[in-house]
Amino acid sequence: MKELEERIIKDGKIINGDVLKVDSFLNHQMDPKLFKAMAKEWKRLYEGEGINKILTIEASGIGIACIAGLEFDCPVVFAKKSKTSNTPEHSYSSTVKSFTRGTVNDIFVSNKYLDPEDKVLILDDFMATGEAAKGLADIVHQSGAKLVGIGIAIEKAFQPGGDELRSMGIRVESLARIKEMSQEDGIIFC
Amino acid sequence: MKELEERIIKDGKIINGDVLKVDSFLNHQMDPKLFKAMAKEWKRLYEGEGINKILTIEASGIGIACIAGLEFDCPVVFAKKSKTSNTPEHSYSSTVKSFTRGTVNDIFVSNKYLDPEDKVLILDDFMATGEAAKGLADIVHQSGAKLVGIGIAIEKAFQPGGDELRSMGIRVESLARIKEMSQEDGIIFC
Repeated sequence: MKELEERIIKDGKIINGDVLKVDSFLNHQMDPKLFKAMAKEWKRLYEGEGINKILTIEASGIGIACIAGLEFDCPVVFAKKSKTSNTPEHSYSSTVKSFTRGTVNDIFVSNKYLDPEDKVLILDDFMATGEAAKGLADIVHQSGAKLVGIGIAIEKAFQPGGDELRSMGIRVESLARIKEMSQEDGIIFC
Repeated sequence: MKELEERIIKDGKIINGDVLKVDSFLNHQMDPKLFKAMAKEWKRLYEGEGINKILTIEASGIGIACIAGLEFDCPVVFAKKSKTSNTPEHSYSSTVKSFTRGTVNDIFVSNKYLDPEDKVLILDDFMATGEAAKGLADIVHQSGAKLVGIGIAIEKAFQPGGDELRSMGIRVESLARIKEMSQEDGIIFC
């Protein structure tokens, strides 16, 4: 998606070689107008799929997912993180490793908010190793709902997450796919 | 706000005497259409105040704030929680106690995303003791920005937060103010 790629070039910062900082518009300060354009693009890509629920994970997926919820005209559920490994009763849960932070979180979704009739779109801001998306997909499968696909704002295509999910037969639509990046050469998209 | 009050009556659950569970539409599953109606109401209430930035706190404030950002046509910043008491350099920070969870969090906002020209609206889903709002207001004051006011979805008016902030001269607009609630008598609004 041209508008997102241009924004990444303009406002993204590469630090420590492989960390892309986009906290001026995506995951600390957020640009709701850009999120609306992204939502319209996912709506176009998944047109006719009957999506009736959006699933994301706290915290930085929530803004994107809520604005997409307006476009898709459906409820949005966010998976909560629990560090206690005490996930509440009556919930679907999975485990997510964060390679950037070196943490492991249990994530959970109340079983009231996903059911076998649901056609679910998973949305998130970033994909690298794909651990968060795999955890969310696991939760969708537990619920018996249909996973229609995954929408990602920025995929680090040089990391394995996106292709692993695609090889599992899951449709992944990333609006900006980074092929390579470095402080010297900048960002090259796929 | 009638629509929100009716939704609380319809879908809210009172548990353990004084906990109001609204996770079917506000803070686990979220209703983006309702959020849009709430955003329009805050826009009406703060019309003419020149608000150019919305500040909230992760996680459950983010969805409401992002949809409000569309109505106000301005960027949205969310304060991040850090359990380490290691807030990053170049940030404004404050400390927030959670009475419901019994936790203490440092919260922080990068100093890049608030500056003295900003006219800030703080938004959050709940107010009880007002600790989160006070922490956010503290961060706005540190930045030199003008705090125009606070918008809350549900205020527990029988707890002191809202009135304490009002007595500090801060405008607080809560869309539903609960005067009292109990499993026997249900919810009574102010």
